[in-house]
Amino acid sequence: MAANFGKNYKISIFGESHGNALGVNIDGIPAGTELNLEFLSQEMRRRAPGRSKLTTPRVEKDEFEILSGFFDGKTTGTPLAMIIRNSNQRSKDYSELKRKPRHADWSGFNRYNGFNDIRGSGHFSGRITASLVFAGAIAKQILKSQGILIAAHIKSVKDIEDRDFVESDITEKNINKLRNMTLPVLNEEIVEKIEKVVEKTREEKNSLGGIVELMVTGLPAGIGDPYFESMESELSRMIFSVPATKGIEFGAGFGITEMTGYEANDEMYFDENGEIKSFTNNNGGIIGGITTGMPISFKVAIKPTASIEKAQKTVNLETKKNDILEVHGRHDPIIVPRAVPVLEAATAIVILDRVLEAKKYQL
Amino acid sequence: MAANFGKNYKISIFGESHGNALGVNIDGIPAGTELNLEFLSQEMRRRAPGRSKLTTPRVEKDEFEILSGFFDGKTTGTPLAMIIRNSNQRSKDYSELKRKPRHADWSGFNRYNGFNDIRGSGHFSGRITASLVFAGAIAKQILKSQGILIAAHIKSVKDIEDRDFVESDITEKNINKLRNMTLPVLNEEIVEKIEKVVEKTREEKNSLGGIVELMVTGLPAGIGDPYFESMESELSRMIFSVPATKGIEFGAGFGITEMTGYEANDEMYFDENGEIKSFTNNNGGIIGGITTGMPISFKVAIKPTASIEKAQKTVNLETKKNDILEVHGRHDPIIVPRAVPVLEAATAIVILDRVLEAKKYQL
Amino acid sequence: MAANFGKNYKISIFGESHGNALGVNIDGIPAGTELNLEFLSQEMRRRAPGRSKLTTPRVEKDEFEILSGFFDGKTTGTPLAMIIRNSNQRSKDYSELKRKPRHADWSGFNRYNGFNDIRGSGHFSGRITASLVFAGAIAKQILKSQGILIAAHIKSVKDIEDRDFVESDITEKNINKLRNMTLPVLNEEIVEKIEKVVEKTREEKNSLGGIVELMVTGLPAGIGDPYFESMESELSRMIFSVPATKGIEFGAGFGITEMTGYEANDEMYFDENGEIKSFTNNNGGIIGGITTGMPISFKVAIKPTASIEKAQKTVNLETKKNDILEVHGRHDPIIVPRAVPVLEAATAIVILDRVLEAKKYQL
Amino acid sequence: MAANFGKNYKISIFGESHGNALGVNIDGIPAGTELNLEFLSQEMRRRAPGRSKLTTPRVEKDEFEILSGFFDGKTTGTPLAMIIRNSNQRSKDYSELKRKPRHADWSGFNRYNGFNDIRGSGHFSGRITASLVFAGAIAKQILKSQGILIAAHIKSVKDIEDRDFVESDITEKNINKLRNMTLPVLNEEIVEKIEKVVEKTREEKNSLGGIVELMVTGLPAGIGDPYFESMESELSRMIFSVPATKGIEFGAGFGITEMTGYEANDEMYFDENGEIKSFTNNNGGIIGGITTGMPISFKVAIKPTASIEKAQKTVNLETKKNDILEVHGRHDPIIVPRAVPVLEAATAIVILDRVLEAKKYQL
Repeated sequence: MAANFGKNYKISIFGESHGNALGVNIDGIPAGTELNLEFLSQEMRRRAPGRSKLTTPRVEKDEFEILSGFFDGKTTGTPLAMIIRNSNQRSKDYSELKRKPRHADWSGFNRYNGFNDIRGSGHFSGRITASLVFAGAIAKQILKSQGILIAAHIKSVKDIEDRDFVESDITEKNINKLRNMTLPVLNEEIVEKIEKVVEKTREEKNSLGGIVELMVTGLPAGIGDPYFESMESELSRMIFSVPATKGIEFGAGFGITEMTGYEANDEMYFDENGEIKSFTNNNGGIIGGITTGMPISFKVAIKPTASIEKAQKTVNLETKKNDILEVHGRHDPIIVPRAVPVLEAATAIVILDRVLEAKKYQL
Repeated sequence: MAANFGKNYKISIFGESHGNALGVNIDGIPAGTELNLEFLSQEMRRRAPGRSKLTTPRVEKDEFEILSGFFDGKTTGTPLAMIIRNSNQRSKDYSELKRKPRHADWSGFNRYNGFNDIRGSGHFSGRITASLVFAGAIAKQILKSQGILIAAHIKSVKDIEDRDFVESDITEKNINKLRNMTLPVLNEEIVEKIEKVVEKTREEKNSLGGIVELMVTGLPAGIGDPYFESMESELSRMIFSVPATKGIEFGAGFGITEMTGYEANDEMYFDENGEIKSFTNNNGGIIGGITTGMPISFKVAIKPTASIEKAQKTVNLETKKNDILEVHGRHDPIIVPRAVPVLEAATAIVILDRVLEAKKYQL
Repeated sequence: MAANFGKNYKISIFGESHGNALGVNIDGIPAGTELNLEFLSQEMRRRAPGRSKLTTPRVEKDEFEILSGFFDGKTTGTPLAMIIRNSNQRSKDYSELKRKPRHADWSGFNRYNGFNDIRGSGHFSGRITASLVFAGAIAKQILKSQGILIAAHIKSVKDIEDRDFVESDITEKNINKLRNMTLPVLNEEIVEKIEKVVEKTREEKNSLGGIVELMVTGLPAGIGDPYFESMESELSRMIFSVPATKGIEFGAGFGITEMTGYEANDEMYFDENGEIKSFTNNNGGIIGGITTGMPISFKVAIKPTASIEKAQKTVNLETKKNDILEVHGRHDPIIVPRAVPVLEAATAIVILDRVLEAKKYQL
Repeated sequence: MAANFGKNYKISIFGESHGNALGVNIDGIPAGTELNLEFLSQEMRRRAPGRSKLTTPRVEKDEFEILSGFFDGKTTGTPLAMIIRNSNQRSKDYSELKRKPRHADWSGFNRYNGFNDIRGSGHFSGRITASLVFAGAIAKQILKSQGILIAAHIKSVKDIEDRDFVESDITEKNINKLRNMTLPVLNEEIVEKIEKVVEKTREEKNSLGGIVELMVTGLPAGIGDPYFESMESELSRMIFSVPATKGIEFGAGFGITEMTGYEANDEMYFDENGEIKSFTNNNGGIIGGITTGMPISFKVAIKPTASIEKAQKTVNLETKKNDILEVHGRHDPIIVPRAVPVLEAATAIVILDRVLEAKKYQL
């Protein structure tokens, strides 16, 4: 269902950029989970704009209110709903965007017969991902208690590349460090380079994209299913729900197509502790749709922010002629840093859903 | 559900490589559809092995039997089930594979507590995709009657690249031509190159992968949903159900991360017929999860065949020591040509499901 | 999913009796639907307590706020979320109920390991059905525009029986009349009898149940599916979600078991307008899971209000001994009149979901 | 989905009365389950016709073939598909039924635009329930290993009533006895009475219905969910998928509407073993949608066999005039005895699905 995801950890989202409120209803949180509200707030702030000059100067507080499913500091096991009020609802004139649609406004116009809320992209706004961050933060907290960690960093901006994750990067300490960085990268030497190219792009009223790499550790072998509920199927389905995503690859991904089978097969061995590992992890911890016990690793392509101030060609639905659109406003010159916590959260939601699913493989 | 896909055009698959039969139950075929059985058989043959020296010499006839839902040459509207008998069920000794697992055998061992059918990879076998090809062939027939066409070609093998699809490639004539090619590529000059590298790889008892590009034309703007039923979500979920898939990218995909927003945004214009088009299609025909009216285009990374004869390191679950595995048998030196009809079929299943879904956007 | 219902008109509910707020997220409302807010408020008031001396004197205003999916007086097609604040959240001492569970408190204790919100039955409270009434009111409005009407009356209280609906009862005028009655019955002579028995029961600190009959007219033949999405399956699944429901029967229901096949089969004929009708409607307008074109008719058994002031035996989880429970508070001596709008709404949700489903039977 | 049921123990059915084969695909059977094939066959024979003079003399062998998911005598954990060939496919002339529709033929005509297979009611045939019996028999076997038993008896035929189940009836011995009875009743004195009225009805070319009572023991308190996945919701949804069902009631059912709250509430106590029980079970073991630990008990109304030889009025779609239909053939004068194993199986499928669901309430 368009608004709903999950079979076991189930979310149902709603909201628009400039509506009264946005939020999420979560069903399936194990009863009695103590929520760390401070952690939830921190995660929300990671996504919120205005944290650095790399993001839009728009200030959104993203203060959430829990409406249900939470009693005496613990989850009740029944649906937990959360809302965030939109403080920022100036009734600006959006008629130009209605006449001259841009990106998702055009899709939405066709999908919803012209009735979609066009203010600030409405339901298509990246702002809606605040609900994913919230649901993901609860999932992360639960997964951590099971020894499962999720980390993400910016793998590249334009042609500036960070190194890849290795399993030993995934420690609580490193994760906390990445979470507190404005530009979460492993090789800190590239930070200044990225800042420069972003600044230049902002001045040109243009925008940039990039690649985010994610890693999940602590999952045992045997989680997932072949075919339509493969780990890759469930993860990709969710990741492509994050606006601006245009590609996903697991392990060596597209690069695996240039290897031979001998190179691509991750040869297994017993490590010093008698645990089964593989020398390489070209399959990103998933074979046959099921975890192998190696870390899950994947990369996500995030396109440049679609909303730019630079004048662009478009159609005018009123005059039925070609026209020019200039979108004034305060846009993110690069959405990638703010996409990082969203992708982490999206991953956490899927992983928790699959961990709960695995509970019923046996009686 | 692991065996089930679709909300409107719904399939439920079953079978193993060496079991009694494999097949699919399809619910949601519009009543009164005249099935072109000859076309269905042709599609099955495209996936079947033994067609050329590029594939395994194993012969599988893939003759299907329709069990239900088909009466007087037309679909009845009630579930249509199909089975294919496995002729090839020699009770070979598979105990070595049980001791020394390889790729999905190891995942399956953990997922199913060692009870999965290990013969020829069992349920993980690529052979199970015959059911997708069947369900996809019916979907293709229905979509074609609505003016919707699906095409695929091999975009690359190792570092040998074909050119990209352009919209004008997608004609019935071209599609038929591609369907009849052993190596379906646009630039025929690369055929010999590919054959050579495949032959060399076969001699080395090794295997190769590649990239497949797909294109769907004829879909109006406005099909799909934001978030969890985005066109990318539904397509990727299905495509990652096709064994050996390790990546998917829409439009410019990972390449879009090196563009600016100005370049990446597909600027729109009225064409000579007053139809709204975009100059570029970097978003692959999908923005905000919804079709834009431009062709849907995406690329899929297929890894090298995992089953190779070349000796590989593995673990021995019996001795609990590291060991060597040599898998004798008749393997595909490259699975990409046989993956092409499977990916086409998988795409057709999703597109039909979404076209039916779109029927209820309005009353 | 426990909190979620529907494939096409999809709802996701949340809330507790004494939490911050309750509400619903609705996905799948056709874009551009003008909502009649006054009608929505009226429907909410029908369920709200305090309307007459037959209900609890507790006052709940049930004022709803629409958070999303509604713009310029029309639905946008994206999720529409609604919340109702709980004004009535006195932090009364509920520790006795925790020690001495009653009805759903005991189920909930086991289901949620003792973490369920026990205040006023928490998530099990009938108050949660306000969300169904809201979603149902929107569905009713849409169905009415398609010529589909839904009516309900109290068929019996204890042994006091109303007459059955006949198709000609189902007019807008009659429906409005029933909606405005404190005790919606067809035979008004029984009103006083019911009032007397209810008053007597209230004085005895006890409670009563009853039967509600529903009828849906205007549905064409051919809506629904055999087996797991039969009209009866979908309706019963939803109706049993309404707290206090213990039985449902379609058409002649349990009475059909005393007929012969000749009597039970609804013989068909052409009426004066050439339309196909049946002389009787023992099957309640549904055969083989699919509508016949006759009105859908069914009856629902509503048990007596479980919360009563009269002292009852129960267990004491603290002392591990048998004990006595007296639940002080303001309870409904009979919940049936307030169940009527909830059952109507629940029916409307299912019917709209199925009407949308039917859109995709054909391409 | 119309052909699909279940979230954890998932079935997908297909087939028609006179098609090539009918069957089911089952996903979610725990891996390593040893199937008792003799028990499966016995269960199939219970539903098969021709067992006594109370059923149609038509002989259907219902010999099943397992196609997948079963290896070395144990389930593999991957989908298990089963088919039953239809031996009885004489190409009789069904054109009269096409012109003069009866019961589900008319629904099907409208639902499927006249393309449904009309031979022997096609997909609407009770014969399709053989798939439920098969899937239910596997579920029963698994549930029994967990101490969960399911029993059913005929509660009434016309006005001849059997006594109600009490919990102590539900022993393996009694269940086996009931399974072997042509007319499974508790009070054997009514057998002859029933036989007489059935015989008389058969002679009159007419048919009879009845009520079946079911009981499930061994389920702990706390299984199920409030609202849309309540135990009653899931059970009723499945039970109404069994053709001929027109009503379902849990515990005291419709009778509860004549009790007071004090009578209807099942007062709890500690029994001699310190276990929490209730003195009565008017709620049928389910409160708030969740099991209480008392037996689940419910009754199902089965209508008289719709296919009768006695002449009946109907419409003639060709002449567009009223007409008379006489359906020659070998019909069941009463379908209730054959419905008993189907309802048991249907119940087992739901209970197993819910037991698996309960595995994930906690991490």
